[in-house]
Amino acid sequence: MSVEFDNNDHFNDECGVFGVFDHAEAANLTYLGLYAQQHRGQESAGIVCTDGHSFHTHRGMGLVADIFQKSEIKELSGRHGIGHVRYSTSGDSGLRNCQPFSFEYAHGGIAMCHNGNIVNAHELRRELESKGSIFQSTSDTEVLIHLVARSKAKSMKERLAEAVNRLAGGFSLLVLGEKRLVGMRDRNGIRPLVLGQLDGSWVLASETCAFDLIGAKYVRDVEPGEMVIIDENGLESLHPLENCEPKFCVFEYVYFARPDSTLEGVNVYQSRYQIGVELAKESPADADLVIPVPDSGVPPAMGFAEASGIPFQMGLIRNHYVGRTFIEPKQSIRNFGVKLKLNPNRSLIKGKRVVLVDDSIVRGTTSRKIVEMVRAAGAAEIHMRISSPPTKHSCFYGVDTPDAAELMANKMDLEEMRKAIGADSLAFVSFDGMYKAVGKPRDVHCDACFSGNYPVAIDGPRSPQLSLLKILNKKQ
Amino acid sequence: MSVEFDNNDHFNDECGVFGVFDHAEAANLTYLGLYAQQHRGQESAGIVCTDGHSFHTHRGMGLVADIFQKSEIKELSGRHGIGHVRYSTSGDSGLRNCQPFSFEYAHGGIAMCHNGNIVNAHELRRELESKGSIFQSTSDTEVLIHLVARSKAKSMKERLAEAVNRLAGGFSLLVLGEKRLVGMRDRNGIRPLVLGQLDGSWVLASETCAFDLIGAKYVRDVEPGEMVIIDENGLESLHPLENCEPKFCVFEYVYFARPDSTLEGVNVYQSRYQIGVELAKESPADADLVIPVPDSGVPPAMGFAEASGIPFQMGLIRNHYVGRTFIEPKQSIRNFGVKLKLNPNRSLIKGKRVVLVDDSIVRGTTSRKIVEMVRAAGAAEIHMRISSPPTKHSCFYGVDTPDAAELMANKMDLEEMRKAIGADSLAFVSFDGMYKAVGKPRDVHCDACFSGNYPVAIDGPRSPQLSLLKILNKKQ
Amino acid sequence: MSVEFDNNDHFNDECGVFGVFDHAEAANLTYLGLYAQQHRGQESAGIVCTDGHSFHTHRGMGLVADIFQKSEIKELSGRHGIGHVRYSTSGDSGLRNCQPFSFEYAHGGIAMCHNGNIVNAHELRRELESKGSIFQSTSDTEVLIHLVARSKAKSMKERLAEAVNRLAGGFSLLVLGEKRLVGMRDRNGIRPLVLGQLDGSWVLASETCAFDLIGAKYVRDVEPGEMVIIDENGLESLHPLENCEPKFCVFEYVYFARPDSTLEGVNVYQSRYQIGVELAKESPADADLVIPVPDSGVPPAMGFAEASGIPFQMGLIRNHYVGRTFIEPKQSIRNFGVKLKLNPNRSLIKGKRVVLVDDSIVRGTTSRKIVEMVRAAGAAEIHMRISSPPTKHSCFYGVDTPDAAELMANKMDLEEMRKAIGADSLAFVSFDGMYKAVGKPRDVHCDACFSGNYPVAIDGPRSPQLSLLKILNKKQ
Amino acid sequence: MSVEFDNNDHFNDECGVFGVFDHAEAANLTYLGLYAQQHRGQESAGIVCTDGHSFHTHRGMGLVADIFQKSEIKELSGRHGIGHVRYSTSGDSGLRNCQPFSFEYAHGGIAMCHNGNIVNAHELRRELESKGSIFQSTSDTEVLIHLVARSKAKSMKERLAEAVNRLAGGFSLLVLGEKRLVGMRDRNGIRPLVLGQLDGSWVLASETCAFDLIGAKYVRDVEPGEMVIIDENGLESLHPLENCEPKFCVFEYVYFARPDSTLEGVNVYQSRYQIGVELAKESPADADLVIPVPDSGVPPAMGFAEASGIPFQMGLIRNHYVGRTFIEPKQSIRNFGVKLKLNPNRSLIKGKRVVLVDDSIVRGTTSRKIVEMVRAAGAAEIHMRISSPPTKHSCFYGVDTPDAAELMANKMDLEEMRKAIGADSLAFVSFDGMYKAVGKPRDVHCDACFSGNYPVAIDGPRSPQLSLLKILNKKQ
Repeated sequence: MSVEFDNNDHFNDECGVFGVFDHAEAANLTYLGLYAQQHRGQESAGIVCTDGHSFHTHRGMGLVADIFQKSEIKELSGRHGIGHVRYSTSGDSGLRNCQPFSFEYAHGGIAMCHNGNIVNAHELRRELESKGSIFQSTSDTEVLIHLVARSKAKSMKERLAEAVNRLAGGFSLLVLGEKRLVGMRDRNGIRPLVLGQLDGSWVLASETCAFDLIGAKYVRDVEPGEMVIIDENGLESLHPLENCEPKFCVFEYVYFARPDSTLEGVNVYQSRYQIGVELAKESPADADLVIPVPDSGVPPAMGFAEASGIPFQMGLIRNHYVGRTFIEPKQSIRNFGVKLKLNPNRSLIKGKRVVLVDDSIVRGTTSRKIVEMVRAAGAAEIHMRISSPPTKHSCFYGVDTPDAAELMANKMDLEEMRKAIGADSLAFVSFDGMYKAVGKPRDVHCDACFSGNYPVAIDGPRSPQLSLLKILNKKQ
Repeated sequence: MSVEFDNNDHFNDECGVFGVFDHAEAANLTYLGLYAQQHRGQESAGIVCTDGHSFHTHRGMGLVADIFQKSEIKELSGRHGIGHVRYSTSGDSGLRNCQPFSFEYAHGGIAMCHNGNIVNAHELRRELESKGSIFQSTSDTEVLIHLVARSKAKSMKERLAEAVNRLAGGFSLLVLGEKRLVGMRDRNGIRPLVLGQLDGSWVLASETCAFDLIGAKYVRDVEPGEMVIIDENGLESLHPLENCEPKFCVFEYVYFARPDSTLEGVNVYQSRYQIGVELAKESPADADLVIPVPDSGVPPAMGFAEASGIPFQMGLIRNHYVGRTFIEPKQSIRNFGVKLKLNPNRSLIKGKRVVLVDDSIVRGTTSRKIVEMVRAAGAAEIHMRISSPPTKHSCFYGVDTPDAAELMANKMDLEEMRKAIGADSLAFVSFDGMYKAVGKPRDVHCDACFSGNYPVAIDGPRSPQLSLLKILNKKQ
Repeated sequence: MSVEFDNNDHFNDECGVFGVFDHAEAANLTYLGLYAQQHRGQESAGIVCTDGHSFHTHRGMGLVADIFQKSEIKELSGRHGIGHVRYSTSGDSGLRNCQPFSFEYAHGGIAMCHNGNIVNAHELRRELESKGSIFQSTSDTEVLIHLVARSKAKSMKERLAEAVNRLAGGFSLLVLGEKRLVGMRDRNGIRPLVLGQLDGSWVLASETCAFDLIGAKYVRDVEPGEMVIIDENGLESLHPLENCEPKFCVFEYVYFARPDSTLEGVNVYQSRYQIGVELAKESPADADLVIPVPDSGVPPAMGFAEASGIPFQMGLIRNHYVGRTFIEPKQSIRNFGVKLKLNPNRSLIKGKRVVLVDDSIVRGTTSRKIVEMVRAAGAAEIHMRISSPPTKHSCFYGVDTPDAAELMANKMDLEEMRKAIGADSLAFVSFDGMYKAVGKPRDVHCDACFSGNYPVAIDGPRSPQLSLLKILNKKQ
Repeated sequence: MSVEFDNNDHFNDECGVFGVFDHAEAANLTYLGLYAQQHRGQESAGIVCTDGHSFHTHRGMGLVADIFQKSEIKELSGRHGIGHVRYSTSGDSGLRNCQPFSFEYAHGGIAMCHNGNIVNAHELRRELESKGSIFQSTSDTEVLIHLVARSKAKSMKERLAEAVNRLAGGFSLLVLGEKRLVGMRDRNGIRPLVLGQLDGSWVLASETCAFDLIGAKYVRDVEPGEMVIIDENGLESLHPLENCEPKFCVFEYVYFARPDSTLEGVNVYQSRYQIGVELAKESPADADLVIPVPDSGVPPAMGFAEASGIPFQMGLIRNHYVGRTFIEPKQSIRNFGVKLKLNPNRSLIKGKRVVLVDDSIVRGTTSRKIVEMVRAAGAAEIHMRISSPPTKHSCFYGVDTPDAAELMANKMDLEEMRKAIGADSLAFVSFDGMYKAVGKPRDVHCDACFSGNYPVAIDGPRSPQLSLLKILNKKQ
């Protein structure tokens, strides 16, 4: 899925994190680490640095390059830093919920940020409130902070271990103390977290593309349930969580991650390309051209073209200057929303039988518009091929999918979907095909959004629905 | 003291509060209540309104009229509201410390703001942290919030009573719950808080000038140690604090409050005017003209002129468009800083013996510049008269005075001060003269900044000095 | 008239200019010269500096201190500069019309700005357009620029002389070439222009208060019809205009100029004070208090008090933080607009017979509100005294008065006006009283706004009414 | 060439125009027409609309979507409009030079904008100045405006014809009067201009992609030297210029235009793809992968892959969130500038022999960095293929190329270039290959930047070098 401007039909990006310990350019590197991971969250960004005594913070709404200017970076002094880019998945948006959070408690200053979602945040919050905790944001992170602050344990690692043992969900977490940087993944390792080195200093990021930009060397992925503690004595690895079982989010490969990243040993670009190859084998089409919906449809379309022998062409041109455009002309232009971002190259398409490759179908509205637009450009036939299985379920671990009730694949069978989007044929890659392309077994992945098999139980209200204002209605 | 642009020599203003319960235009009235009290704090402002369920907040750095536009006011829906203007006296500045604070706890949503200073905030904070509380700001208010949240009492008024019983200092407090507005003064009533009515609704403010603008009727001052609880059943008055003893800040009369306000039954303008009368009796001068340092020097100068029979003239003209001017020409212009705000009218002053009336001398730098400037304009003699006693001590109850070590009157005797500022004579009003002018006994006032008699004991580090960053240095 | 926030009843300020030749801090001094003259125009400001080769410009909407930051001043390099503050009197507002204008023509670069109004600008513009000139603004200044550019004369002073000979109206003009600064007043010297010296360099300004701030020495007023040309050889004075006859704007004394300025040898503050003295003699009142409408009512109120022996008190307190407030509560507060700026001190006024002194009555709406407000504060009687004659006519020489049809004094006799504003008595100073106070004969002044005696004939449409958009309607 | 953030090595984009006559949504459509053509200029944008009487303008620095918000569009009322996006090629940058220009002259209001460069602007300007014209910008457009205004001809079309007959260079021009819209191309048709229809209204644009977004139907390209006049009577076509000879800019196909546009009957994407095919035939390479430098290298790389049979892969991943990043870490990261935008996918490239396809080599710095980066990612061999002939000469018709002296191909032969960029082999497409791919004869194109054959003579100083400030140095 690639048309992020259409609010009716897309996955919002989740979050990205970056951390560095003991480097002369901590703020600069954190800035660049976020810049390289901007695709993981365009709503807000923040950096906290510490010089071992004080904490310096800057957070703002918008893109990394707009929020941080020279003066802001300069004030973020210190050799240790963490940063965060965010697309709201839990908590309402607004500066109040921007991460990292920094706070002071009995043991000094501390800052935290995370990528993912804590599914029992709501019940933990109620429990903490009953003990006298107050909440100033609606972010999951604030729950974790209170758990740490209320721990009676002696060392930060014990306090953190005690706190994260209470959490359920999918999350990768960075914690910055005056003298240490901690990285941690949930017991299933649902969200990514990678470890690297630069000039002898340790760095942590959601994706390896952050390391590439700053010239850091990738060392390894942090393991599911692992806590890495980096301080002046080097890196210590702990495993405070029990029942760890790898369940990495397969949708990172299909859509989320940057294609040049390598996560859990799998290159994202190549997994996408191979899905295209499998898709061509599973669901061939008699056609003249293979055309991707840019950008995440490009690698699978190339794979499909190679496997099928049908020529690959960039038949949909992406406008690279898509901004926050409010304007919708009164005399409605057909498929206006999609046209702002994509334009079919009529002279390529006209009269051709086209295989159109996209990464997913969510609500189906965008797919319908794209098919309609390509047909209006003269396509003789349109064979839609999707590089993931049908999206039938919501994600509760950090990907902002719509309610299941709004998902097209949850409401229709394949033939109904085909009709609804107006394609001549429609096919999704199979689970087998997808995992064959990824090159790793299905049972070490979470594919709940496709299969409904949730590795972490979801009780009570879904956390993202909560917000301070709404909660207030129910109380006292 | 009237030259607020000179950071080397002035009292910063403290804070102002406003609250309204059950009025269709709660946000508008709160806005106007703050607007009228802008002189009490120009650094930041905030408003929280509630519709009985949700809380709506807007806070910002700067002036009330710049922070709140139509759209912001419109979103502050609800019939109850509180607001705050602030000049940092405790906690470092920045949006994070802007009041009111709103938060959620076991009993629902709540918002708070206060004017003044809690002198035992630091030790309370340490105690709360040891119990697992976390702090995201450096404001005293956050301490109070935690005390309330940790109270096991059943009703909000009991929780508040329990919490404020822990506090020492000078403060006037507004608390907004979903269904009630609470106003409270410290046991000495050091800072002002007045109660009024508009269209049958109750309003609270720091000064009566806020009531004048919105057309509200002044009812009475909230009493020292009194808690007024306003809800759908009307106003209830409680006295949860013991050992209440009135000690109203006399400096509100001399400098802080707007001259058109009436506090504790005393009209501010008239008390200033009468101080001038007393000053003329106590320390007459053989002169041709009485000239005020505008604006707070105007009423005492008029009183001095009346009592002495010497003509009153506006010999110093104030530039009403003084903004944040950074420019200091390289070839230094003599007394440039003062000249940006005040210009002597040479044709009035030339050759005249002048009585110059100002409200106070803090560090003495501005006074020296003004004397120098008036002399350069041709004054034959300059007799400086000050409408308050010498400022020898710091305030710990909400007025941001410099450290005592920087106060001119703490370091010099009268003759040394006269020489230092370059006047031909110098006199301060006496304590007797000041209280005679005010028309009320000395023992119901706090005049610690002049006398050193602190009604509330100051132990440990002075609270205003604390900030998150500095505290961190001392920990772990 | 002093309540400038009320768009229904006020004179807008006109413009102010400043120029300096051959000083190391040209941009800084020009900035300060504008800052001191901010009262003459708060809508926009601009500075042009030249280093003898290039011209550097910065202009913006708003206040001087907001438009110019360190970086802007730094880029205004060069030893010569001119600047302008403006309240639109001719041409619509907007950046396009901000002065100074800089342009390039056959003889190099040049920049210009002026204070005042050219009454034949419209017909000159039509003439120039018929010869092929194009116009990008609606400012009078652009007309002058074209006249200069089309002159065949050899020297800049001849070209300027030729051009200004075509102009009718009241204007003070600054022109900056690469190597010279020119100052010029219209043949009647309606608008002010003063000449001074600082560190051996010449400076020009609308008012002497600009010289006071920068420490420059006042030398003399530029004469009516005089052109002063300042270059590396010093100052040369020319008189290129014939039929010069002094007609200085008397309203500068009554309201426009800053009280600490001295114009045409008359100190503004003292002329205002003396008007109060004359007013008390001409139209005494049996009263308890004299209260000014601040700020321009203060000096005449003091003069009135002195002459009458009635005590002077600041019974109306001005809010110094008046900003652009949009908010008008729905449940209308009586006299809300005036209350935002002025608050009566009830405890002073209650039960008293009051003389209220203001500078003028324009439409009468504000005066009515003030009277009403003072009466609501408990005044037993209100005797309104005005420190200028009745304003019956529009100004066409740079003061933005309403159309004559809207002026209260044009529509009513004295008794009708008294009733309309609700005062117990009403009196204006006489022409004789006013000129006696000013200390100079009537025939060297323009008092057209009071008398209708226009020194420069007004033919055709009144220039301020023209704007690019409106003109376009009438063409082709 | 595709790395636009590197100021040392790129072509700046030129400009784009859009116009619409007699449509209810003129401002909206113009906004969208500019939005679709944002790639032609990211420095500033402007729109002028007219309702047949008044002209409404909004211009600003930055991107279309940032400059125009709802409120700005709403104020651009009227049924006719023109708009412009700009990357400065002539005149210094700054709001003053933003197009369209609107002005008033003897025949009413008028607005103009153009894409391209007028090579004799400097001498025309001197001539106009000598006749009394003044200049407020440094834009070529202002020269044209004066020529029109000074024409004695009776009708606008005659005045325009007279004026454009004086101009030399490459330009496409839009002129908006109260009652008509005029589009015009230079006598060689160097810059594009296309004509379309929407809902019965005429539209004009630089590229057809603007029509696609708004749903307009492409009608035809405006012809070289043709003037189309659109008014209430429909479209009239004139040919006021003599000696017309088509010389369309071939670089529009190679790099400038959006690939989905069709210009002069040639689809841009397909011409690029075919160049890749020709390149593979002319300069094959023994390699494992064909990798494009995105984005303009993508189509020729695909063509090269098809013709050579070597697999095509996206080995360089583009960061889509590239903003104005100021940060350059102190410890310099190798090839940092290029890495901000492009990241090699190491797992694809490692050990492979790579054909790298880019659109051009200008200064060579970026090419060197890309080659270095790809080699660092493990490429065994790098064969660089360029989809245009060597760039040896500057463009004077609207493309901001560096001075010829800075062009790598002007200083080195092929082998020297290969060594300098560090490739194992280097080849450019031939002129024959390029035109074969385009599918039209060479003699109807301008390829001066490759060949030095300038269709319009360049005398005197190169216009883009002129600016107001610099010119001033030479005068008086």
